[in-house]
Amino acid sequence: VARQALGNEVSRLKAPSTIPYTDDEDAAKPAYYTDHSKPMHDRMEAYVLDLQDRLVTALESLDPSLQKFVRDRWERSDGHGYGISCVLQDGAALEKAGVNVSVISGTLTPGQLKSMRDRRAQTAKLLDDSEQFDFRVAGISVVVHPRNPYAPTAHMNYRRFEVFRQNAPEGEPPVMAWFGGGADLTPAYLFSEDAEHFHQTLKDACDAHDSSYYPRFKTWCDKYFTNIHRGETRGIGGIFFDDLDDKEPEQLFRFAYDAGNAFIRAYVPLVARRMAMPYTQRERDWQLIRRGHYAEFNLVYDRGTKFGLMTPGARIESILMSLPLTARWEYMNEPDPDSPEDRLLRAVRTTTNWTR
Amino acid sequence: VARQALGNEVSRLKAPSTIPYTDDEDAAKPAYYTDHSKPMHDRMEAYVLDLQDRLVTALESLDPSLQKFVRDRWERSDGHGYGISCVLQDGAALEKAGVNVSVISGTLTPGQLKSMRDRRAQTAKLLDDSEQFDFRVAGISVVVHPRNPYAPTAHMNYRRFEVFRQNAPEGEPPVMAWFGGGADLTPAYLFSEDAEHFHQTLKDACDAHDSSYYPRFKTWCDKYFTNIHRGETRGIGGIFFDDLDDKEPEQLFRFAYDAGNAFIRAYVPLVARRMAMPYTQRERDWQLIRRGHYAEFNLVYDRGTKFGLMTPGARIESILMSLPLTARWEYMNEPDPDSPEDRLLRAVRTTTNWTR
Repeated sequence: VARQALGNEVSRLKAPSTIPYTDDEDAAKPAYYTDHSKPMHDRMEAYVLDLQDRLVTALESLDPSLQKFVRDRWERSDGHGYGISCVLQDGAALEKAGVNVSVISGTLTPGQLKSMRDRRAQTAKLLDDSEQFDFRVAGISVVVHPRNPYAPTAHMNYRRFEVFRQNAPEGEPPVMAWFGGGADLTPAYLFSEDAEHFHQTLKDACDAHDSSYYPRFKTWCDKYFTNIHRGETRGIGGIFFDDLDDKEPEQLFRFAYDAGNAFIRAYVPLVARRMAMPYTQRERDWQLIRRGHYAEFNLVYDRGTKFGLMTPGARIESILMSLPLTARWEYMNEPDPDSPEDRLLRAVRTTTNWTR
Repeated sequence: VARQALGNEVSRLKAPSTIPYTDDEDAAKPAYYTDHSKPMHDRMEAYVLDLQDRLVTALESLDPSLQKFVRDRWERSDGHGYGISCVLQDGAALEKAGVNVSVISGTLTPGQLKSMRDRRAQTAKLLDDSEQFDFRVAGISVVVHPRNPYAPTAHMNYRRFEVFRQNAPEGEPPVMAWFGGGADLTPAYLFSEDAEHFHQTLKDACDAHDSSYYPRFKTWCDKYFTNIHRGETRGIGGIFFDDLDDKEPEQLFRFAYDAGNAFIRAYVPLVARRMAMPYTQRERDWQLIRRGHYAEFNLVYDRGTKFGLMTPGARIESILMSLPLTARWEYMNEPDPDSPEDRLLRAVRTTTNWTR
C-alpha cells in the first residue's frame, strides 16, 4: 500500500517566490535590542518570542495548503514559568515542525548542579558545593521535518541561563550567566550548495562577532550531534556552543540575536528550493530511515531530551516534539555504492569544510 | 497519500488453520534435554537454536505470502562467538520480526562487572573487586511486530550467563551462573481474551516449576518495561526475571525450556486470530504511535539495548532489530474518552491480573 510512487502528487506543490519576515539588516532594531535598561533575561525573553513569531511566519509562507501552526501557551503547574509551543503537523510542505519558547525558573537539583560542575571547572568554582542555587532560563527550540525527502530537516536552539544565590533579593545580579545554542542541518540527500549556503550563512553571522566562533562551534557541533554507535554524525552539522560567557553579556546577546536571525536565512530558502522536487517511494523510505537515526540520537544521546525525560512534571509533549512524525527502521539497509543515499552516508561519516 | 482506508486489502489475508511446530507435551524430549553429561552451556546453546528453528517455522506458517525469514550467520571478528539472526521484513502478516540467537564469550569489562555487582549483593560477594572474570552466554532474543493493528507485538528473550575466573582451565565450573529472560505482549488495541491467553499460558509454564515464579516475574515485568516519562508500561506485561540461580541448574534449565516453548503457544495463535481483521488508517496510525512509544522504551531504558550501543564492535543491526519497521510521533495525540485507543491507554496506566 505504501509502495506506490509519490512524485506526481508532490510535484503539484509550488514553492513561494519570496519568503516574508527574513530580517532586514538595515531595518531599525527592535526595542529589546536597543534598550539597555532592561535586565538581560527580559530582553532575551522578548527576543525569543519575536524570533518565534518571525520564524513561524516564514515557515507558514512555505505551505501552499495554507496550513497554520497551532499555538499552545502552557504554564507550569508550580507557577515557575510558561512556554509557547507552535506546532504544524501533516502539512503539505512540512511534515512536522515545532517552534517552542520556554521561560522557566526554579531551584537547581543536585543532579543538575553536578552536571553543570562536571562540564566546566569555572562552574565548579563559582557554584559552591555547600550552597543551593536558583536559576532562570529563556530559550527557543526549533525542529523542522519537511515532507519532501530532498528538503533537509533542521534544528535550532538559543537560550540564556542565569544562576542565582538561593532566594536572592530581586535585582541582585546572577552568580553566573551564559548563552548556549546552535543550529544544524540534517538532509536525507546531500546537495553541496545547500550545505554551503547553510554553513556560510551561519559563519557570516559568527564572523561578525568573533572569527574564532565558527570554527570552534562547527567542531563542537560535529562532535555533539554524533550517533556514536553508528559512527555517523546526525546530519552535516552547523554550529553548537554552551556555557558561553567569554564576553560582556551585551556583546553575547548581540551574537545570539544575529545567529538566531541567521537561521531563518540559512534554512527556510532551502526548503523552498527543494519542497516541490518530484520523488518516489524510494526517496521517501530513505528519508524515513534517516529519521529513525534522528530519533535514535535524540532519545539515546541528546542532553536536553534526556534531562527533560528524567525531570518529574516536565511537559513530555514539548520535549519529544523534536521527533519526526514518521520513522523507519529497516534491518541491514545498505545503499548501493555511489548511489545518492550512499553519498549522504559518506558525508555523515566524515567532516567537511562547507565554507569559504 | 497515506490516509486512505486499508481494510479491504488486509481482509484478503487468511490466517492458517493450524500452526505447526508448537511443542507436543507428550513427544519425546530432545537429546539436549535428557543428556546430563553435556555442560549446561552447550545444552542451552542447543536449546536456543532448536527454539529459534521452531519459532521461525511457526511464524512463517502465518504468512500467506509465503515470505520466509532471511537467516544470517555472523561471527565476531575477535573470534569470541557467533550469532544467527533470522529476520522477516515487510511481510503480509508480519511487518518486522527478528529471532536472534547469540553465543558469546569474553572478559567482563569493569563497567559490566560494576553493573552486575550493583544489581545484586550475592554477585558483589562472589566476584571480587580485585580480580578479572571471563563470561560466556547463550541466548535467544525475539521481537515480532505484526502488520495488522489488532495483532499484538511481542518480545521474548531467554539466556544463560556463566562467569569464570579469568583464564580458568577448560572444565573448571563457573564462579557464578544464572538464567534470565521473559516474554511480554504489547498490543495497540486491548482484547481481554488475548491478554488472558498470553498470561495464563506463561503462568501455567511457571506454576509447573514454582508457584512463586509467575507472581514475582509478572510484577518484575510490569516494573521493568515502563516508559517512566509517560507513566505507562510498554504493553500489558508478561514475565521477566534475571540472575535466577535459586535452584539447581538442571531444574532452572527445565524451567527456561518450558517457558521458552510456552511463548510459541502463548503468542503465535494471537497473531493468527487477529491478522485478517479489517482495519482502517485510523487503527494503523494508532498502531504506529504505540510503536513510537515502543522505540522510546528500547532506546531510553532497555538495559540490553543501551549496553549493546555502548559496546565497541557490537553488531548494531542485531541490537536495533527490535525497533519497529515504522513508528510515528504525533504532537498531543489524545484518544477520545472511552474509545478503543483510550481503553488501551488505561490498560498501560495500571496493572491488571489477567490470570485465573
